[in-house]
Amino acid sequence: MLQAILGDLGSPPGRAKVVRTESVLEQHGRDFTYHAPHLPHAVVYPESAVEVQTIVQFAADHDIPLVPFGVGSSLEGHVIPIKGGISLDMSRMNRILEFRPGDFIVRVEPGVTRSQLNEAMQSSGLFFPVDPGADATIGGMTATNASGTNAVRYGAMRDNVKGLEVVLADGRLVRTGGMAVKSSAGYNLTGLFVGSEGTLGVITSITLKLQGIPETTVAARAVFPDIDAAGRAAVSIVGAVAIGRVELVDKLTIAAVNAYKGTHYEAQPTLFLEFAGSKVSVNQDVDLARELCFLEGCGQFLFESDSKARAQLWEARHSAAIALMARNPGKKMMTTDVCVPITELPGALFHARETMERYGFEGSILGHVGDGNYHAGFTIDPNNEKDLRALEAVNSEIVTYALAKGGTCTGEHGLGLGKGKYLEQEFGDEAVVLMRQLKQLLDPVGIMNPGKGVDFLNR
Amino acid sequence: MLQAILGDLGSPPGRAKVVRTESVLEQHGRDFTYHAPHLPHAVVYPESAVEVQTIVQFAADHDIPLVPFGVGSSLEGHVIPIKGGISLDMSRMNRILEFRPGDFIVRVEPGVTRSQLNEAMQSSGLFFPVDPGADATIGGMTATNASGTNAVRYGAMRDNVKGLEVVLADGRLVRTGGMAVKSSAGYNLTGLFVGSEGTLGVITSITLKLQGIPETTVAARAVFPDIDAAGRAAVSIVGAVAIGRVELVDKLTIAAVNAYKGTHYEAQPTLFLEFAGSKVSVNQDVDLARELCFLEGCGQFLFESDSKARAQLWEARHSAAIALMARNPGKKMMTTDVCVPITELPGALFHARETMERYGFEGSILGHVGDGNYHAGFTIDPNNEKDLRALEAVNSEIVTYALAKGGTCTGEHGLGLGKGKYLEQEFGDEAVVLMRQLKQLLDPVGIMNPGKGVDFLNR
Repeated sequence: MLQAILGDLGSPPGRAKVVRTESVLEQHGRDFTYHAPHLPHAVVYPESAVEVQTIVQFAADHDIPLVPFGVGSSLEGHVIPIKGGISLDMSRMNRILEFRPGDFIVRVEPGVTRSQLNEAMQSSGLFFPVDPGADATIGGMTATNASGTNAVRYGAMRDNVKGLEVVLADGRLVRTGGMAVKSSAGYNLTGLFVGSEGTLGVITSITLKLQGIPETTVAARAVFPDIDAAGRAAVSIVGAVAIGRVELVDKLTIAAVNAYKGTHYEAQPTLFLEFAGSKVSVNQDVDLARELCFLEGCGQFLFESDSKARAQLWEARHSAAIALMARNPGKKMMTTDVCVPITELPGALFHARETMERYGFEGSILGHVGDGNYHAGFTIDPNNEKDLRALEAVNSEIVTYALAKGGTCTGEHGLGLGKGKYLEQEFGDEAVVLMRQLKQLLDPVGIMNPGKGVDFLNR
Repeated sequence: MLQAILGDLGSPPGRAKVVRTESVLEQHGRDFTYHAPHLPHAVVYPESAVEVQTIVQFAADHDIPLVPFGVGSSLEGHVIPIKGGISLDMSRMNRILEFRPGDFIVRVEPGVTRSQLNEAMQSSGLFFPVDPGADATIGGMTATNASGTNAVRYGAMRDNVKGLEVVLADGRLVRTGGMAVKSSAGYNLTGLFVGSEGTLGVITSITLKLQGIPETTVAARAVFPDIDAAGRAAVSIVGAVAIGRVELVDKLTIAAVNAYKGTHYEAQPTLFLEFAGSKVSVNQDVDLARELCFLEGCGQFLFESDSKARAQLWEARHSAAIALMARNPGKKMMTTDVCVPITELPGALFHARETMERYGFEGSILGHVGDGNYHAGFTIDPNNEKDLRALEAVNSEIVTYALAKGGTCTGEHGLGLGKGKYLEQEFGDEAVVLMRQLKQLLDPVGIMNPGKGVDFLNR
């Protein structure tokens, strides 16, 4: 039926390009996680908000599911069209619409990627700090409330999105937020759509807050005898220093990165650190952090002083997921994403390791420990039912521990297909009922990325 | 009828204290602005979330309006029960529920005041930075998304509230957010209730993010020949320095403060500045800011180096509104609260002065210019219809200018009774329709602070 509607209309809807070739459907039907792929019926490439409105109205009229697609770097199955329908590829909406350097503001279309944005602003001395590792689109990052290595200093997407334009499920275009630094005018619609995972509407423009590039940046590696010591050092540093980045990388991940990138980092639990600010304040911060690392038994504290070595360090960190996949060709990724209050981090890391050992899985541990956010990552053959069930049990134990300590089931990846089931455990029934009421209000027909996030019961 | 219901039930609802004495009703029926007072039928003092639930259910059953009340320091009529009903005085819910210094987190009841909170935390080396001037309650500050002098560095309430407990209009208790630094789990209910001005539910607990007290703090006054120069200097400073506070105070306000507080500040347009951080970085920042002030014609740059002089400076700034009222006994306050992109600030200040002169009003200009947020304040006899209409025209012209420049009608006071009419002009019809749908979803009977904020048509 759905196929027929899309087929009959030839090149629906409106003037946007429609593609149905096998390879393109496949590319839009999977991600690199363990979640089962599912093909869309068509991939549509809108070029403007008006075209998005036409497509959404068409989808609403014919009850066709719509799944926005950026670059497909989601780690929780967000882009998989589990009920078919239209994959709405936003890559042609990639213009920088307005840049106001004096106001530290830029407005972009959702298909602009993080690196595209930062390249365009390079000569201005400004940058957009949120950095999830993948060269994701700003639209995708907004939809999942992404964060990453810089969040300890600059916050997550929700802290950096000033306003949005969103096409709702009935085709209305809503403008939220604005360009003022702050506002108390009306309900905070911007914050509601940030992190809504495509389930409340299609984002068509995003106004972002920018930052000045710091005067001085210094990166360092602190090598520890064990991961618990590294975790404790991270907690001390965050309490004492305005750190730029503090990333925990375990032995397994360092070995995988060395193999994948040709680096020669010692395969020991390591903190990757970055300090930024004025020259004097950076020097002070570095001295204090180094002392705190040594107090926790750090054996080596090595500077990556020139910009090339620094770039290499962060490229290595960012390639961790891919490096782990490369070690296990043919397998797919499953990753936890809990975030706990920072003092609970050492206990959470210990519990995660103990759980993995108890189930007999070799997993990597890495993450944005300055936020209390870490990932236990596994590669898995998704056709191996037994392993899949066992790993889901590991995932579940790690989440349950984090929630008992006041944490969250997902610090930055979003609920997607894998984490929705923990929502009641995290917030209680009443909050989830309210979230479902909001979904019902904004998408009564249920065409917006059905079955994802808050809509997890609708599979 | 309403009176009868409340009367018949003797001491409704539940065990909470109910007061109906004239003086208490009057105290809860007005604020110090031009908005017309209106008495509640009763003032109820809940002592727990469960009591709030009982009261809300009682109100819902009998269709009785409910208006949460903190200390009554709102500047836009939020606490005035324009339809009578119950004024819900939260002052007895003033416990600090949980303090986790290592996680930089505290959870409080809504009746805790800002100064009570900071006194309780003093020995920990931490503080809560949002500072609207008045010693408001955390509940009231949350409900209006308050900010104030520290926002240029630490953001507004929405940036600093991690989670809430809220009693909805049907008596359900909803828990939002949590204690993790960040989360991508579900819709951002916390951000929706922050700034909802009591129209979506009654806040019964608030989890706040804390900050470490900076190593060094230095305050200074920079005196300028005219207000435009002071505004331009503020813009330059914010672009170049991680300033702690930057407040613009005009001649008229300085004169009023001197009279009210017995200070001897020169009655000239002045920036009140605060620098905070490590000793070396503060010294660098001070040097740069001073240079930028001199470039704009600053005649004197004076340090308030000891903590007593510094406290006096900020106390003077905070008493500005009261000092202006004291100059005009018997009159009430009307204040604009626009916030514009920072580069638009000098033009907005010029326009505001020109508008006031054109209408023949003497108004004070002061504000948090580091955010592009300033207030044009007037004292007025609210019974003088002609003046009232003329001042509303001034207010309206200032708002219209700000909106045309990408700003907001209210940077920090909230919509309350006075600013709701600008909502469509600011966001467009579609966003306001969506806001009204949210109000309808969460408060279908319309008992939650009716006629305020987004609900402005319901007068």
